Amino acid sequence: MNAASLTGMTALSIGKDIKLTSAEELEATLRHIGATRYHSLHPFHRLLHGGKLNKGQVQAWALNRYYYQSTIPIKDAVVISRFRDRATRLEWRHRIEDHDGDVGSEGGIERWLKLTEGLGLDTAYVESTEGILPATRFAVEAYVHYCREKSPLEAIASSLTELFAPNLHEERISGMLEHYDFVNPDIMSYFKRRLAQAPRDAGFALDYVKAHATTPEQRAQVCNALIFKTNVLWVQLDALQHAYVEGNIPPGAFVPKAT
Amino acid sequence: MNAASLTGMTALSIGKDIKLTSAEELEATLRHIGATRYHSLHPFHRLLHGGKLNKGQVQAWALNRYYYQSTIPIKDAVVISRFRDRATRLEWRHRIEDHDGDVGSEGGIERWLKLTEGLGLDTAYVESTEGILPATRFAVEAYVHYCREKSPLEAIASSLTELFAPNLHEERISGMLEHYDFVNPDIMSYFKRRLAQAPRDAGFALDYVKAHATTPEQRAQVCNALIFKTNVLWVQLDALQHAYVEGNIPPGAFVPKAT
Repeated sequence: MNAASLTGMTALSIGKDIKLTSAEELEATLRHIGATRYHSLHPFHRLLHGGKLNKGQVQAWALNRYYYQSTIPIKDAVVISRFRDRATRLEWRHRIEDHDGDVGSEGGIERWLKLTEGLGLDTAYVESTEGILPATRFAVEAYVHYCREKSPLEAIASSLTELFAPNLHEERISGMLEHYDFVNPDIMSYFKRRLAQAPRDAGFALDYVKAHATTPEQRAQVCNALIFKTNVLWVQLDALQHAYVEGNIPPGAFVPKAT
Repeated sequence: MNAASLTGMTALSIGKDIKLTSAEELEATLRHIGATRYHSLHPFHRLLHGGKLNKGQVQAWALNRYYYQSTIPIKDAVVISRFRDRATRLEWRHRIEDHDGDVGSEGGIERWLKLTEGLGLDTAYVESTEGILPATRFAVEAYVHYCREKSPLEAIASSLTELFAPNLHEERISGMLEHYDFVNPDIMSYFKRRLAQAPRDAGFALDYVKAHATTPEQRAQVCNALIFKTNVLWVQLDALQHAYVEGNIPPGAFVPKAT
């Protein structure tokens, strides 16, 4: 298996002719998918991190991404619900805590609301999700349904985009702080925290799929789960670009105030 | 209730302040939603019907829309599964037959494949759905999940876009036959057949929601189900426009051959 043999990769799958015969080939293929499909490559991120967006466009990004963030603990509860094995449930449970926090301690969702508030959005409006793009909703809900309906192995594999998140978050923190006068370190605390959380989570998930995908068919399922998840992320940025960069805001969605 | 009072309509709902107190107000609101949200208003349809697309762009439309068409009988089977009432199941069942046909008689899916074949697409590739836009898949699957998870009333209400389909299909048939030399009456048979089927189906669904939504809360649910469905359709055209008109084809999706 090398990158050249993955030319049959479609929007949906790595292609029927790929036969991964070892955990090492699986990992190499997963890293290739990340290198070619992860949303760090999306033009909207280049605009966001390069200081090319106005405040309203950054607001639209944060508003829509809130729906993704606030759905993650629901998705993780679904993943937990797929495992009769107590050890896997225990391992996965801290992900819910990372996002939901606890009584008296904030979690990722509250940190995200610091970002939207810092950008000038009304928190009640953000939490209502009434103004997000329909494409955001469909993509995010597809992720929850995927974890409910596919195999437990695929549910875990769909989290593997976290392997590629830390580089993106580093770039985002430095790029946004450098380029936008309406961004400060405090409102970027979500990303700083994820720099520590994501590698631990991704490490577990990678070890899990390498150990539990024991046939070429299962290794292909794992790869296709990662492709699915890169699509979930990519679709969200396509929708933001179409609506807020190219100017095609769909009916009823958030309209930035003229500045 | 009049159109002016619907200014609180969001991307997701008719807004919290609307109180529909009769079946007539419900129908007027549904028709207002159709008049302001149905995808007949989408710029991509104006390009399609006005002869402004090239063959590759029309192929992309037909390829992606195949996924919607071929999912409709699955959606309708889900709707049927929500009703313990035999009469409603009987009434709804012909929708599956309309799309799936029968042994020896063609249905809507086969007619759609005549369209994609007539446009020069390989049928096995179309049926594989490997090249459709991820946004198409997420939107269409959202429709199936909606009918499974919401109330039976909302499942029926989400079909109400059919109220507005015949005008769109008339415009499509005449516009596409006039403007494209690669389109002929035979490959447009799907739409001609729907001119008879859709009004009958929409009439039943409209009567049903008018009779069974008996509180302002239920009437709001019916309206929101129609808004949801207009979003399912709108998102598909946004994605086509972004990918194939504005030139941002996502990884692995169908790439038209240069002509």
